[in-house]
Amino acid sequence: MRLSKMLFVTLREDPAEAEIPSHKLLVRAGYIRRIGSGIYAYLPLMWRVLQKVSQIVREEMNATGAEECLLPQVQPAELWQESGRWDTYTKAEGIMFALRDRRNRDLALGPTHEEVITTIAKEMIRSYQQLPLHLYQIQTKFRDEIRPRFGLMRGREFIMKDGYSFHTDEESLKETYKDMDRAYRNILRRSGLAFRAVEADSGAIGGSGSQEFMVLAEAGEDEVLYTEDGKYAANVEKAVSLPADAEPSTFKAYEKRETPNTATIETVCNFLKCSPTQIVKNVLYQAIFDNGMTVLVLVNIRGDQDVNDVKLQNELTKLAGEYKANTVLSLTVPDEEAQQKWAAKPLPLGYIAPDLSDDYIAGSKEVSSKFLRMVDQTAVDLENFVTGANESGYHVVGANWKKEFELPKIVVDVRTAASGDRAVHDPKQVLETARGIEVGHIFQLGTKYSQKMGATYTNEKGEEMPLVMGCYGVGVSRLAQSAVEQSYDKDGIVWPVAIAPYHAIVTIPNINDTQQVETAENLYTQLNKAGIETLLDDRNERAGVKFKDADLIGIPYRIVTGRSLKSGKVEIVERATHNSEEVAVEDVVSYLQKSIAAATDSEQ
Amino acid sequence: MRLSKMLFVTLREDPAEAEIPSHKLLVRAGYIRRIGSGIYAYLPLMWRVLQKVSQIVREEMNATGAEECLLPQVQPAELWQESGRWDTYTKAEGIMFALRDRRNRDLALGPTHEEVITTIAKEMIRSYQQLPLHLYQIQTKFRDEIRPRFGLMRGREFIMKDGYSFHTDEESLKETYKDMDRAYRNILRRSGLAFRAVEADSGAIGGSGSQEFMVLAEAGEDEVLYTEDGKYAANVEKAVSLPADAEPSTFKAYEKRETPNTATIETVCNFLKCSPTQIVKNVLYQAIFDNGMTVLVLVNIRGDQDVNDVKLQNELTKLAGEYKANTVLSLTVPDEEAQQKWAAKPLPLGYIAPDLSDDYIAGSKEVSSKFLRMVDQTAVDLENFVTGANESGYHVVGANWKKEFELPKIVVDVRTAASGDRAVHDPKQVLETARGIEVGHIFQLGTKYSQKMGATYTNEKGEEMPLVMGCYGVGVSRLAQSAVEQSYDKDGIVWPVAIAPYHAIVTIPNINDTQQVETAENLYTQLNKAGIETLLDDRNERAGVKFKDADLIGIPYRIVTGRSLKSGKVEIVERATHNSEEVAVEDVVSYLQKSIAAATDSEQ
Repeated sequence: MRLSKMLFVTLREDPAEAEIPSHKLLVRAGYIRRIGSGIYAYLPLMWRVLQKVSQIVREEMNATGAEECLLPQVQPAELWQESGRWDTYTKAEGIMFALRDRRNRDLALGPTHEEVITTIAKEMIRSYQQLPLHLYQIQTKFRDEIRPRFGLMRGREFIMKDGYSFHTDEESLKETYKDMDRAYRNILRRSGLAFRAVEADSGAIGGSGSQEFMVLAEAGEDEVLYTEDGKYAANVEKAVSLPADAEPSTFKAYEKRETPNTATIETVCNFLKCSPTQIVKNVLYQAIFDNGMTVLVLVNIRGDQDVNDVKLQNELTKLAGEYKANTVLSLTVPDEEAQQKWAAKPLPLGYIAPDLSDDYIAGSKEVSSKFLRMVDQTAVDLENFVTGANESGYHVVGANWKKEFELPKIVVDVRTAASGDRAVHDPKQVLETARGIEVGHIFQLGTKYSQKMGATYTNEKGEEMPLVMGCYGVGVSRLAQSAVEQSYDKDGIVWPVAIAPYHAIVTIPNINDTQQVETAENLYTQLNKAGIETLLDDRNERAGVKFKDADLIGIPYRIVTGRSLKSGKVEIVERATHNSEEVAVEDVVSYLQKSIAAATDSEQ
Repeated sequence: MRLSKMLFVTLREDPAEAEIPSHKLLVRAGYIRRIGSGIYAYLPLMWRVLQKVSQIVREEMNATGAEECLLPQVQPAELWQESGRWDTYTKAEGIMFALRDRRNRDLALGPTHEEVITTIAKEMIRSYQQLPLHLYQIQTKFRDEIRPRFGLMRGREFIMKDGYSFHTDEESLKETYKDMDRAYRNILRRSGLAFRAVEADSGAIGGSGSQEFMVLAEAGEDEVLYTEDGKYAANVEKAVSLPADAEPSTFKAYEKRETPNTATIETVCNFLKCSPTQIVKNVLYQAIFDNGMTVLVLVNIRGDQDVNDVKLQNELTKLAGEYKANTVLSLTVPDEEAQQKWAAKPLPLGYIAPDLSDDYIAGSKEVSSKFLRMVDQTAVDLENFVTGANESGYHVVGANWKKEFELPKIVVDVRTAASGDRAVHDPKQVLETARGIEVGHIFQLGTKYSQKMGATYTNEKGEEMPLVMGCYGVGVSRLAQSAVEQSYDKDGIVWPVAIAPYHAIVTIPNINDTQQVETAENLYTQLNKAGIETLLDDRNERAGVKFKDADLIGIPYRIVTGRSLKSGKVEIVERATHNSEEVAVEDVVSYLQKSIAAATDSEQ
């Protein structure tokens, strides 16, 4: 393509809306254009990148025997009501766009396709002989994000590869799950990305096991904890570790102490000259279930530890049935406004005891009239500990479970693992931390959807059994941007060769020089014929502007038909290293063929 | 792909929802599956067809220098308000899905992308040096159809290629328009379809010139009128022709006659023993504009002619400014219920005179208090004509314009052309009729959108000028189904080779016969390696079932490893003709390579 014939517009200024480098660069270099909040147009250069990523994804998926299809984006509400996810996805913090058609029927824009594919499986799969089966699609998806940002990273419209597999049993599911793990690693390696596969929380999708694929980058929204030996890596939402040992208590006798202005762990430790590991911290949460019920949860945890909201939400979801609900819609530390809806009297915030009595709750139809109590395992073995006295400005010291305080029946692991913690698999290994961008997620769903939606098959004995399912997603547009986030410099984008929009750009420094133009035109034609995707900068611009633009858009190889032409050579500049080499005009095609093969081989 | 590993399910029964053969066949053969009204999943076989059509479209578009991109499907309402189309597209008969996000901002699901692309052009195009420019995308679009039907033909979610070009002037636009005409003919020819390019109405998209590409098929929703000499073809909505000559009047004097029970042209002709060409027929319409205003329109037309609603709507749209409106939302013949909203007294329906007096209108804030009168050119030259007397059961005869009736100031062509009419370009040519499925439409938009949205460029003299635009659409999913509608037989689908999901299917009649299986497996591997996309029917089914399925899904070549194996041969059956040939196993690849090349060559 000739730049003179393309929609080629680069900007000098960073766009006001952009916070992270990849977002700024993609807008400045003319790859994307904002149309609305979290909504972008993919301009021609970006579309080429997306097609290249899609093609790598497609090849790796097809190699596993998965079949490509395309499912509807507009989905009838009935399907989501059947699976029990309509309310979770459309109400409260729900992220699904809902709409009504001209006949007032509820519809949704698909953020994911478990419901649609399970319906198809239910209608089309009859027998174990049809299994296993794996269908996938590459498609634009929609999420009504609370805070769209970072360009394509957290958009309201984005491109995903989502696949769904169907099996007779868990064993068959695990095989496909393993295939997908391999396929996803191949996809990321072939795309030229540094990444880490980590244990993950299954979130609203549900199911038993799940793994995320993180592209490592400073601006990543996710924190990954991992060990040097490579044997453990997990999203912090899910990570487990061994906490530091608690220090022995310095308090021998139970006693209530006046501790003014000590509403934080730090202040009470200073005041009482004790370690945070000697404290039982009591944190109050307010959980709202999908049936509208509010449950107040008091969590006891060791003073040096923090509650991991995702783990706590998962523990509460396990208990949803007891409140006649399916799932937790929101989990928050109640502020004063929230408390006013149910508090019978002011709470002693900062001084709450492990057993806050139920008479703090006035209750109402929607609020459970008892505190739900849970203790994190870090707090279970503490003796003679310090904790709140249920009275502002007072703590107790030398307290013990089963003496002063009843130990909650529900013992859980809801603590946040942190870098520096010892690893569970080998206490000599210490957890390290990295930032990552989640670009892939694979799930073992089990029978969660097939049971709710009645999707069954007949086994060899003639019995009707629920289909066992897996689902597997790659964020195609997010992956593309994450490549930029991982690979740029002060001059612009540095695309991995495999997903760059073009391999090379032929730059004519002076379009009034006939020899420069002729050589460039010839090279442009030869390179494209040889399958090397090449741009031609034939614009009437200064050489400096052209070099800057080529660097900004990040094309891997720049061929300059400049001064060295008099000795029959052109300059070839590698974008990533800025290394420049003079190459005879007749050797340019083979030089680039070798370079591209080497660059994409090393990525594979 | 092996059928044993695919989602391969065929049905014996026609689906209840399907009315036309292509819809029945695509469902029965497992290509598509209904998820909701007008919403279909494209299963793996269908997806392959759609990808092949898309690839042909892409190649032809790229060959013209157009650049592929992808624009958002969710579009902010502001853009549509700017262009003035928000109300037309979302209210009354509007076909755009509207929705609200979590912040209550209005959004729409794009049925078309003039607004988005014009916004991008406005922001990115500065100078004439950037022009011409043509961007296109292949994308799922949405329409909240009043009556979704015929499978993918009139769905609520469908795949389109839509392209938009920008120019300095009309001349440059016309060049691209011509390129598109050629590209579209290539697309249809390469897809193996019989089609006709016809003059078309520009409808809600607007603009000056437009042309449709019709795939010819009995079940087509559109009627095409054309002449044998190939010099004229138009959609009936737009077609013009010469009406038959009027017979001279048999009434010499003006007179009112009692004509009981003659509310139709036929009955009054019988009663008065006159020709329909001697009558002025007066048809009352009710037009609702986008600002809510209702205008009553009385059209005078010759008795043997019919009013073409599309032409009339276009004439009314030209007058919209006089009613402070932009466009006509609906145009209907008012029934009794509609009349009650504005009629001051009962109308003499069937006996209306050319000049129905305004005192029939009681009027209201929303109803124009005068009849808008128009005369079709067929009625202008009549003399001593018959027409209604504005009194039930009475006509007048021997009437004349300017004597008994005022000739309306607005003279229009709103008559429906019909097969049998003489052609305008050559009265010796007679219009013939055919049914067609509209699969492509190209428009010269001019400055309609750029002026409304302020999209300008600076010309060579430094003046700011509105961009001149064109837009060009191909219904990708509709084209795919129209291929089936044009090409099937009693046994199933007969895909054109160029867009068939696979070229060939190797059928093993008996999977317990080792020689059959081995030969088939070898052929399957060899054929795929040679680039011939091949299925393997390795299912444990009777040969008859396999043959039936292969015919139903319409794969162009079936290779049967049956009895002739003992003489080293397989049977190759051509789907389209059912011709069968015995071919030596070692010649199968070259035999098919030749056949496929010939079939796709002849299509090109």
